[in-house]
Amino acid sequence: MDYVYGPGRNHLFVPGPVNIPDPVIRAMNRNNEDYRSPAVPALTKTLLEDVKKIFKTTSGTPFLIPTTGTGAWESALTNTLSPGDRIISFLIGQFSLLWIDQQQRLGFNVDVVESDWGQGANLDIMASKLAADTNHTIKAICIVHNETATGVTNNLAKVRKILDDYRHPALLLVDGVSSICALDFRMDEWGVDVALTGSQKALSLPTGMGIVCASPKALEASKTAKSYRVFFDWKDYLKFYKMGTYWPYTPSIQLLYGLRAALDLIFEEGLDNVIARHNRLATATRLAVEAWGLKNCTQKEEWFSDTVTAVVVPSYINSAEIVRRAWKRYNLSLGLGLNKVAGKVFRIGHLGNLNELQLLGCLAGVEMVLKDVGYPVKLGSGVGAAAAYFQNTTPLIPSRI
Amino acid sequence: MDYVYGPGRNHLFVPGPVNIPDPVIRAMNRNNEDYRSPAVPALTKTLLEDVKKIFKTTSGTPFLIPTTGTGAWESALTNTLSPGDRIISFLIGQFSLLWIDQQQRLGFNVDVVESDWGQGANLDIMASKLAADTNHTIKAICIVHNETATGVTNNLAKVRKILDDYRHPALLLVDGVSSICALDFRMDEWGVDVALTGSQKALSLPTGMGIVCASPKALEASKTAKSYRVFFDWKDYLKFYKMGTYWPYTPSIQLLYGLRAALDLIFEEGLDNVIARHNRLATATRLAVEAWGLKNCTQKEEWFSDTVTAVVVPSYINSAEIVRRAWKRYNLSLGLGLNKVAGKVFRIGHLGNLNELQLLGCLAGVEMVLKDVGYPVKLGSGVGAAAAYFQNTTPLIPSRI
Amino acid sequence: MDYVYGPGRNHLFVPGPVNIPDPVIRAMNRNNEDYRSPAVPALTKTLLEDVKKIFKTTSGTPFLIPTTGTGAWESALTNTLSPGDRIISFLIGQFSLLWIDQQQRLGFNVDVVESDWGQGANLDIMASKLAADTNHTIKAICIVHNETATGVTNNLAKVRKILDDYRHPALLLVDGVSSICALDFRMDEWGVDVALTGSQKALSLPTGMGIVCASPKALEASKTAKSYRVFFDWKDYLKFYKMGTYWPYTPSIQLLYGLRAALDLIFEEGLDNVIARHNRLATATRLAVEAWGLKNCTQKEEWFSDTVTAVVVPSYINSAEIVRRAWKRYNLSLGLGLNKVAGKVFRIGHLGNLNELQLLGCLAGVEMVLKDVGYPVKLGSGVGAAAAYFQNTTPLIPSRI
Amino acid sequence: MDYVYGPGRNHLFVPGPVNIPDPVIRAMNRNNEDYRSPAVPALTKTLLEDVKKIFKTTSGTPFLIPTTGTGAWESALTNTLSPGDRIISFLIGQFSLLWIDQQQRLGFNVDVVESDWGQGANLDIMASKLAADTNHTIKAICIVHNETATGVTNNLAKVRKILDDYRHPALLLVDGVSSICALDFRMDEWGVDVALTGSQKALSLPTGMGIVCASPKALEASKTAKSYRVFFDWKDYLKFYKMGTYWPYTPSIQLLYGLRAALDLIFEEGLDNVIARHNRLATATRLAVEAWGLKNCTQKEEWFSDTVTAVVVPSYINSAEIVRRAWKRYNLSLGLGLNKVAGKVFRIGHLGNLNELQLLGCLAGVEMVLKDVGYPVKLGSGVGAAAAYFQNTTPLIPSRI
Repeated sequence: MDYVYGPGRNHLFVPGPVNIPDPVIRAMNRNNEDYRSPAVPALTKTLLEDVKKIFKTTSGTPFLIPTTGTGAWESALTNTLSPGDRIISFLIGQFSLLWIDQQQRLGFNVDVVESDWGQGANLDIMASKLAADTNHTIKAICIVHNETATGVTNNLAKVRKILDDYRHPALLLVDGVSSICALDFRMDEWGVDVALTGSQKALSLPTGMGIVCASPKALEASKTAKSYRVFFDWKDYLKFYKMGTYWPYTPSIQLLYGLRAALDLIFEEGLDNVIARHNRLATATRLAVEAWGLKNCTQKEEWFSDTVTAVVVPSYINSAEIVRRAWKRYNLSLGLGLNKVAGKVFRIGHLGNLNELQLLGCLAGVEMVLKDVGYPVKLGSGVGAAAAYFQNTTPLIPSRI
Repeated sequence: MDYVYGPGRNHLFVPGPVNIPDPVIRAMNRNNEDYRSPAVPALTKTLLEDVKKIFKTTSGTPFLIPTTGTGAWESALTNTLSPGDRIISFLIGQFSLLWIDQQQRLGFNVDVVESDWGQGANLDIMASKLAADTNHTIKAICIVHNETATGVTNNLAKVRKILDDYRHPALLLVDGVSSICALDFRMDEWGVDVALTGSQKALSLPTGMGIVCASPKALEASKTAKSYRVFFDWKDYLKFYKMGTYWPYTPSIQLLYGLRAALDLIFEEGLDNVIARHNRLATATRLAVEAWGLKNCTQKEEWFSDTVTAVVVPSYINSAEIVRRAWKRYNLSLGLGLNKVAGKVFRIGHLGNLNELQLLGCLAGVEMVLKDVGYPVKLGSGVGAAAAYFQNTTPLIPSRI
Repeated sequence: MDYVYGPGRNHLFVPGPVNIPDPVIRAMNRNNEDYRSPAVPALTKTLLEDVKKIFKTTSGTPFLIPTTGTGAWESALTNTLSPGDRIISFLIGQFSLLWIDQQQRLGFNVDVVESDWGQGANLDIMASKLAADTNHTIKAICIVHNETATGVTNNLAKVRKILDDYRHPALLLVDGVSSICALDFRMDEWGVDVALTGSQKALSLPTGMGIVCASPKALEASKTAKSYRVFFDWKDYLKFYKMGTYWPYTPSIQLLYGLRAALDLIFEEGLDNVIARHNRLATATRLAVEAWGLKNCTQKEEWFSDTVTAVVVPSYINSAEIVRRAWKRYNLSLGLGLNKVAGKVFRIGHLGNLNELQLLGCLAGVEMVLKDVGYPVKLGSGVGAAAAYFQNTTPLIPSRI
Repeated sequence: MDYVYGPGRNHLFVPGPVNIPDPVIRAMNRNNEDYRSPAVPALTKTLLEDVKKIFKTTSGTPFLIPTTGTGAWESALTNTLSPGDRIISFLIGQFSLLWIDQQQRLGFNVDVVESDWGQGANLDIMASKLAADTNHTIKAICIVHNETATGVTNNLAKVRKILDDYRHPALLLVDGVSSICALDFRMDEWGVDVALTGSQKALSLPTGMGIVCASPKALEASKTAKSYRVFFDWKDYLKFYKMGTYWPYTPSIQLLYGLRAALDLIFEEGLDNVIARHNRLATATRLAVEAWGLKNCTQKEEWFSDTVTAVVVPSYINSAEIVRRAWKRYNLSLGLGLNKVAGKVFRIGHLGNLNELQLLGCLAGVEMVLKDVGYPVKLGSGVGAAAAYFQNTTPLIPSRI
């Protein structure tokens, strides 16, 4: 029935898809419904209103598209740009690479700004390009907020500041797939024009909903953007928004109820508390890595990601073997190193609906596996370091005080 | 919690999304998993093999795309055609209309062959166009197997025969959204090049998976087709098929397990028995419509659809009022008339995992609602006619003999 | 996986266990919890308060016992009576027979008042026994409110009146298994001392919770009652009620959350609306039986049950064959005739979370099966009669007006 | 909706109810069914056959009673004994105390053999009583295999040996509530006459099924035992077993399917592997306790329980505060000390469907809480000790090799 069974729970610490909270699983445990009845639009209306809160926007327009993050990227690009348009895009890891590949295949003229994997976007180069671009040939800046492959978080406030410094009208398109709902994200304050995430990341839902939010400026751009698009076209959504029926084609009823439950949980905990919890778990993870004597793939503290930590292994170890052992022996799912860092790093995803003890269980598993593959770690050292941090910082659960 | 509650079950008789069988709901009631573990590819492999059976193909290559039917359309078109390509497309109702709209917006040169709504595709015109096309400027025939808006089923065997008669190399692209797994569909025998369906139709799953199957000829065409595409690009899937990891981006774990359960149920019942059951329920519905003295929107018996019946109401009744009353009073979900037939027809979807008594309950509801809105129907007449047919034709449930 | 699969939904029309509403199934879809945490007592407290409403009592004390109706019976008897105690008990069908059997095996001196199966309790005999009992040797009157085997509802107001007329102090113990939450039941007004039901009946939950409610007089009696009891002893519950932890042993976490959801649905619909709905479905069923030319096993209208209808078949038909065919051919579950009426009646349960179209589907199935076994019914006749009644009486669903 | 929500999963480490595996939750996620249809008996038949395996009996007769462990106790006693019968019963902790209380209230003449809490049953006293009982006035030995309050496991093989040495015919009644399916248990080999467990313990189901297994000798005794019983009477079950319908009253459909799934998981893992896993987790827990410098409540290694560890706290700490903090701060559910050891011990339940990393997460939580309440533990020390043991002993998951 299940394809690979092991006793006890699977410890899911890949940086997506992440653990779904039980109340969300329950909410999705249901039959289909007629999406043209009055009930589904009534539900959708609350979702479109509330989902804006996780982007911290009041002026944005959200789209809940039955697709993945890859589709959400495509929606962001094709609705705002035309083939041949010049865009700046930062290559800092596997996911920014894939987005750039998509940008190129969709016919844009991509000005790639590359950094070493483990570094953040090189904003100095962006600044000099903007400085030189007095004719405003650059139509958009495409940036991944959090590069999931290397655990690098870019500084979006700084990106906005540079754009403002040069009074450059380029659109700011942000992949927030592994950041939104987990890291501090401020669409309106940072002047983000299109932000997007996927349901299976910090929202802690199944895969299948690409959530895209467009600023008024992005909506305006979509009126003239010439990229071919139908499935991803915002225009069809807007037409049905106006009619109050909301859906140009059939949504997943289950994901709508799931999103409702997921948002309810996030608001119950408090979005800022959710973000603080991600920081707490990430800090503890980094302390464990330090205690093990291993290096973080992220090269500077300013880029440390609070949703995923990529751990560099000694050269005599293949990191893929760590992932394999963790799965085979301890029912622990870790992230592989991808592309340039394949074999060199393994990744601990610590995003979504997680708590301290779940993470400590994971860290204990990593310690045992490190030892399994020949790395001389002291068992309990990483867990102890992380626990010491938690012991000083974890608040009481508010509903239980 | 639920947005509109009524006592008892909702009677879901729209032609999609349809009722999900309980074993499928159970199979999807689960947490996320790492889709890069060995388990998910092992599961996917069985799905790709087995899903071919519902298309009746051995040579086709299936793609399980996280999208809807609209996205599946886009996948079929953009992978096989280039902007400017001439295609023949049949306009016979709302869904063929929407597909044509997509074809035009994607930049194809669409040769629209229109019929009255309620009639099938005009194959004579197609034949004459093919006859005239000695230069083979026509690159594809696009046809909806079953037009969900009017309950019209086109004769695909005839389409193939005409293509063969003229030895025309045009690709045959078929929308099987409301037919596959419910009507007789023979991809290989009929030389269909791309066939597609959506998970929420006869497969009886939630929305979210567009299932596209490509013939070797279609795959060959995809190598040169110039339409922009990334999310929908088969190439990325094929690359990961070769690697044995199967997924270019994150699939819905829940839908994979759901599809496994749905296919298991279909094979347990027997695909041909499933198709026969759809014919039985459809015939009974048509007998009820006749007993009520109402007309089928489908103008000739040769086009009668076994998945949806569009019922024409007298001119003094607004069919939307029937749908509204059914929902408000009897928790019965019927399909609205769309576009040209709005207000004139209502639709009874009888596809997916349904049985006789469910349909009879629906028909009893329709009778009461007809009376509610002023149509002089004899209560019990349609149910009696349908029941008489069932009483003569329904087999014992094999597992219970 | 499932032991007998058939396409579409099972049509469950036995008089228990009944259909569980989807929101209740969802609420129970969960892991275990520590029942000694603060959460479970907090939940339990709301349940104990709210469950009193379905008994229409403010002075009663409810017990949610992890058992079935049979165990609830035993709890009622052993907590209030001592071996050798004289009690009056009415034998009118299989379930009253089983209760009497239990009473005898527990050592009580049972004064059985028998009626023909299909008749209600003979209250005249009870009156004369009370009249003669000037010494008050009769310690309790045991009566089944609704005899599920024959579809007979007894008049409890009358029972109370007779007790009052003779100023007799006997306890009034009532089996409300197939009545409470479906029929008008007034514990306080009718002076019922112990009332009980099972979770799988009109509450529409899984089996596993016997719900017993005791009047202050019954609680008083429990202090001196000498029947051996431990598992069923109210004293242990009361001790934990006082401590605020509520549970003398482990409850089913799932059923607690399920009961919460079930009560929420009932209160949302309105208990009196629920009762009216049961009357509406029952009346329609009786009209169908009449239209078929068949007889109700219940001999007088005053005893007609609104939760189950026992239908008498002609002598040349074995009613068990009807039940068997319904299951084998139409996935319809009907109730067998039991004991004295085995082979002579079949039963349609119409209790719990049901609506009109579900019942009409069932009635259509019964018609077809009647014809299958050789009874000359006109198909559509019963459904038509029932539908005509619904068409005149069914209100709009309040949440959808 | 949920009464107390906290982010992430609840870490459930009370010694019951325990974590339910996801496949079991899925299997129970279903509507009711007619338990008199052919499907439910077919399912029940497999359960009765397979459940014997977890008792390691071929000659025993199992009963799946809709009750809790307390009810299962009552079933064991009332079916085999008569009021006034002399029995030997061992008092070694809260659960044996409660069973003795039940024995006394049911009217038996209980010869209590008491030990300090933390010690096992005093078998020497039992031996001397048997030696003295040449008239065979002792009708039964009642013993708890695993005392859940103190984490003490009694040696049943030795009990049998003593009975055999004295050729004493007393029945051997065993409470296996927190042992069966987790500890080595051999009903036939050890000549156990009645063994029982509850669904919410090592079987990892919801509460609600008391599973009782009777030897041929116990069944024989039930024919003459004079204790009042109806709900718990085996006779009614045996009557329906013979008829092939199996159920004297309504079972929980959900628990039947759940038990099927639970047994399937156990047999897939292998019962002996399940038992070995319990030993592995328990050993690691004891090593952690040692590393913390704390004492096990169990006074000698021969009594160490592999399903629950009761940890003695220093006298300046109230163990209830540990349990409270764990719940409030880390969403960790631990067991309280009960009765004589209230405030002095807290308990870690490590039974049921658990794995290494779940336990290590729990141990990490305990460490932090110990520090919270002022005990000078070195964070990581217990986890490290347990991990070192796992690192040497945990096998690869067989399905993943």
